[in-house]
This record gives sequence, C-alpha cells and structure tokens, in this order.
Amino acid sequence: MSTSRQEFIDFFPQLTEDIISELPKFGATPEMIQRIKAMIEYNVLGGKMNRGLSVVDTVKIVRGENELPADINEKAMVLGWAVEWLQAFFLVADDIMDESPTRRGQPAWYRKADVGILAINDSFILEACIYRLLKKYFRSTPYYMDLVELLLETSYQTELGQMVDLLTAPENDINLDRFSIAKHRYIVEYKTAYYSFYLPVAMALLMTGSPAGSQVFDVAKQILVPLGIYFQVQDDYLDCYGEPAVIGKIGTDIEDNKCSWLVVQALDRVNEQQRKVLNDNYGRKTPAEHAERVKQLYRELEIEKVYREYEDKTIAELQDKISKVDESLVPRQVFTAFLNKVAKRSK
Amino acid sequence: MSTSRQEFIDFFPQLTEDIISELPKFGATPEMIQRIKAMIEYNVLGGKMNRGLSVVDTVKIVRGENELPADINEKAMVLGWAVEWLQAFFLVADDIMDESPTRRGQPAWYRKADVGILAINDSFILEACIYRLLKKYFRSTPYYMDLVELLLETSYQTELGQMVDLLTAPENDINLDRFSIAKHRYIVEYKTAYYSFYLPVAMALLMTGSPAGSQVFDVAKQILVPLGIYFQVQDDYLDCYGEPAVIGKIGTDIEDNKCSWLVVQALDRVNEQQRKVLNDNYGRKTPAEHAERVKQLYRELEIEKVYREYEDKTIAELQDKISKVDESLVPRQVFTAFLNKVAKRSK
Repeated sequence: MSTSRQEFIDFFPQLTEDIISELPKFGATPEMIQRIKAMIEYNVLGGKMNRGLSVVDTVKIVRGENELPADINEKAMVLGWAVEWLQAFFLVADDIMDESPTRRGQPAWYRKADVGILAINDSFILEACIYRLLKKYFRSTPYYMDLVELLLETSYQTELGQMVDLLTAPENDINLDRFSIAKHRYIVEYKTAYYSFYLPVAMALLMTGSPAGSQVFDVAKQILVPLGIYFQVQDDYLDCYGEPAVIGKIGTDIEDNKCSWLVVQALDRVNEQQRKVLNDNYGRKTPAEHAERVKQLYRELEIEKVYREYEDKTIAELQDKISKVDESLVPRQVFTAFLNKVAKRSK
Repeated sequence: MSTSRQEFIDFFPQLTEDIISELPKFGATPEMIQRIKAMIEYNVLGGKMNRGLSVVDTVKIVRGENELPADINEKAMVLGWAVEWLQAFFLVADDIMDESPTRRGQPAWYRKADVGILAINDSFILEACIYRLLKKYFRSTPYYMDLVELLLETSYQTELGQMVDLLTAPENDINLDRFSIAKHRYIVEYKTAYYSFYLPVAMALLMTGSPAGSQVFDVAKQILVPLGIYFQVQDDYLDCYGEPAVIGKIGTDIEDNKCSWLVVQALDRVNEQQRKVLNDNYGRKTPAEHAERVKQLYRELEIEKVYREYEDKTIAELQDKISKVDESLVPRQVFTAFLNKVAKRSK
C-alpha cells in the first residue's frame, strides 16, 4: 500500500471524532453517539477509496509537490473523505432502493437486523456530516461557499441520474422499450461521472486557488465527464466479460434487468427476431439459460468488438483533448493520471 | 383567507418554474421535468403553511411594516417556501419509514403506484431544490452563507430527532422501557421545534440584518424551542383528547405505539400494577379495548390535569421570557404572535 493510501486511512478517525465530539452540543446521548459512530464506520469505510485519494493526488499534481505542507495535506484529505462520505450517503440509499443484499462484501446497511428502514434517515445523517466537516475545516477559507455549492450541485446531479436509473429499469417491471443509448448515457453521466471524476478535481482546483466558475472548471468537465462515462461503460463491460476472480464478483447485470451499455448497444443493432430474443430473456433471474441466451446474442452482434472500438476511440479522443489543455490553467498530468488508471483496466 | 396567505400560495408556481426552467441545463428530458414538477406539487403543497407564512409575518414585524417592499416580500416568501420544501423532504421520507398510508388527506407519495421506493430519491431531490432556490435568490446577499448553514444545521437537528424517534418507538417492537420524559423531549425538540419554530424566525432575522451568531439568535432559540415543544405536546394531547371533527382526524397514537407526551407522563406516575396495564395494552392496533384501557388509565392518573398544569406553567414561563426580551434586539411581538397562535389551540 502506498504511503498516501495508508496516511489517508489513518486520517479517517480524526474526522469521525470531529462529528462525534460535537454531538453532545446537539443533545446526543452516549447511546446515540455510539450508534452514529458505528453507522459512519460501517458505511464510509471499506471502499477502494480511489475517489477520495484522487483529491489528494490532484492537489499534489497541481502544486507540483510530492509532499504537501501539513495544513494543505490535511485539507485535501478532508475533501477526499468528503467524496467518500458523499458516496456512502448515496450507497446506503441506493441499496435500499435496489434491494441489494450486500455491499463491499458485507450485508448492505439496511439489511442489518437493528437498522432496516432507519437506513433512510442514516443516509441523511451521512450527508449532513459532510457539511459539518466542511464547516469545521473550510469556513475561514475564501472558497468555502464554492465548496458547499459544488457539493450540493453534485449531489443534485447524482440524484437526477439515480431518478432516471430507477425509472428506466424498475426492479420488477421488464420493458426494454425504456432502454436507449441516450438514457444510458444520461444515467452514467449524472449518476456516476460527476461525483466520481469531476468532483474530486473541482475540489482540488478550488483548494489550489482556481476561482469558482473560471475556465479551468469547464476544461476539467469536458475531459472528466467523458472519462467517467468510459469508466462506467467499462464497469458494464466487465460485469459480463471480466474475470470473476479479477473483478471480485460474478456479474448479474443481465439477470438484474440493468440498463447496461451492452444491452443498449445490442438494442441499437438487433433485427426484429433478435429483439424478441432480448425481450424474452433479459432481466430473468432464473433459469440461467436466459442470461446465456442474451450472451449468445451479444456474440452474434459482436458487442465485444463494438466495445473495443468504443474504448479505442474514447481513449484517443481523451488523449487528444488532454494534449490541448492550456497548462497555464492546469497541468495535463491531472488528467493523464486519471486516464492511466482507467484505460484498459481489467478490474 | 388573508391576503398574505393567498399571495403566498400564488407565489409558489414561480418557484416551481425556477426549478423546472434550469433542468434542461442538467440534461433533463421533458419526461423527467414533468415528473419532477408533479412530485414537487404533490408534496410541497397541501399543508397549512403556517411555518412558511411565519417567515413573512416575522419579517413584517421586525421591519414594523404591514406591507413589505416588493423585493423584500419576494425574498421572505422564498424563505417561507424553503421551510415548506424542507418539511416536504422530511415528510416524504418519514412516511416511508413510518409506513403511513396517507398524508394531508391523500395517499402518501411512496404509496402511489408509479412511485414506491423511488420516493427516497425524490425526497433527496426536494432537499436539493431548497439550495437551488437559495442560490438563485440569495447568492448576492451578504447573509447567503449563513442561510445555507442554517438550513443545513436545522436539517441535521431534525434528522437526529428522527433517529431517536425511530429508535424509541420502532413499528413492530413494543417496549415501553425505551420511553421516558427525556427521550420524548429530545424527539420533539429536535424533530419538530427547530425546523418549525426556530428556523422561520432565524431566517427572518438574517434577512433583516441580524448578524449570524449574534445574541438575538440565542434569545429567539430560548423562547421558540420551548414553544415548539409545547406545540408538539399539544399535538400529542389533542390526538387523544381533541375533537375528531375539529382536529380533522381520529387519533391513533396509542394504537401506533407512539412515544407520546401522554404515555411518558403516565409512565412517570404508574405503580407496578398500572405499569403492567400499559405494557399489556399500549401499541396494540386491535381490538379497540386495548386503547380504551390505556385511556382509562390516563383518567386514573389524571393525565389531563397534568397537561393543564404543564400548559399553564409553560405559557406563564414563555410570557415571562418574552417580557424580558430586549426590544433593541427584536420586537417582542415576534414571539407573542407565535404564542398567541399556539396557546390553548384546539386544532
């Protein structure tokens, strides 16, 4: 594990303590405090932390420093954890809405015996914590308001993406007419790309002195949103074609009626008869033959090849865009660092 | 209907339009826009609007004007609707968590056929709208940041109150050992008093130039929080002793295992045998004899008399506190207006 990853993890207890230590001011009893601490640790920890770490990495690149001054380093880690905390807020709620049994290899929070539907309110509390932390660490900075607005707007974008996702692929109502390339793109852009890719960089830019609303934020968005979409398309691809041993799970997007990149590409290419095959087999949990039939259709339609072409084209376009970035605004390395982590990943 | 109430209602479509008109910027399709508009109207409208109107009323009293200048009036109405919007966010989520069938005389939002569990995400979107509206109408004011922080902090307080409420009286697990006067007080203070009573006045104070964190906010809190608690205690009282025709519903707090002011007062006064009566009869939906037996116990313990004494004492204390308010900070009428609406109400 890299130093910065370990340092990032080691910093987490300080933030939990920040939340916990002000709870008596909110009249909280020891029982409440203990429950909130356990809830935060269960849900914020345990992820890969790529989003959070990318805030710290981006600040380092923008400042051209391998080691950050202590106060800057602390602030960058707070913002990194704010992204992880935001994700926890979404995941706790998403798991309820998707009826997911597990998350990060343990029961989803709402499935715990003493939680259940309380998880809805817990997700609100996770969200509220973000603004408590921002207030504590950033209230005296000139970009405090910009950070708060960025977090609020990114939350709104993610919620809009989640709305379209839920409307497009409801749990128990299979209807491929609702699926389309445009719908898929909206979902991945709004539900994933903004908070996972644009947000960490936008935070780092604010921290390093870029004025909110200035050109560099647009430049970052033009690169990081397509990159985030590509990342999610990879996720969809790997769900079907990745090595279970490598990706750490057996994909079930077909069985779960997901509006995956693969199925919207297939729908774009089917003839009438193939469309019927999809209609009859997509989104069925059992028997396994249904999912097998869909995979066979993907082979007939050469969806893997379509993916390879999309991937190559996307990487080339991103490289081109990055090469045109005005480095007086932001070092290109901010974006190449992201692209290198994402491109051709197998997990 | 008073002019200001009608004017307040008439202003609402402008705010919905503000939200709707920027949705294309967020890539929203006409289908999404239509759904969000319907969701907002279903959930934000239809209440008594006392909380929202109290912002406008308070601004009028502080400024000593019966008619506000157009720009001030508009801002006060935006903040009034922000309180109503905040309440909608909470109610949509609370109804899911409480499994409530109805709200304001119509099906609870999550019970609508095409909504269901999407309602969780809809509640997030309602919350996000508040900050879009604040940004639009207040970004250029010197107290914008204070307003945002006030809303965020009040949300956190309400969520903490909701957490204790859910932990104290879970739907299908009756255990009166969890009930206490202290727990009841925490729930009503945090879940109701801050957002319903303190928030509207704090908003009005910010709008009329009181600097955030100054003494007047403490003065307001010292009066409005106890007043808000009294208001909720009345609610609990009226649920059992109010006239159904007047309060517009038949109370079911006993059957629903609610941590009501009445039951915590009873628990504080029971002997061992009476305690057993409560244990055996509280929180049972059927048969009706259970609730009748609880009401009989309330009579034995003279809980109505306990309520009258609490009410008289609380009103006297509030009058005393109000009489000591330094009117160079804020007109006493701000508080007497609230007290007059609440004291001895029968609905």
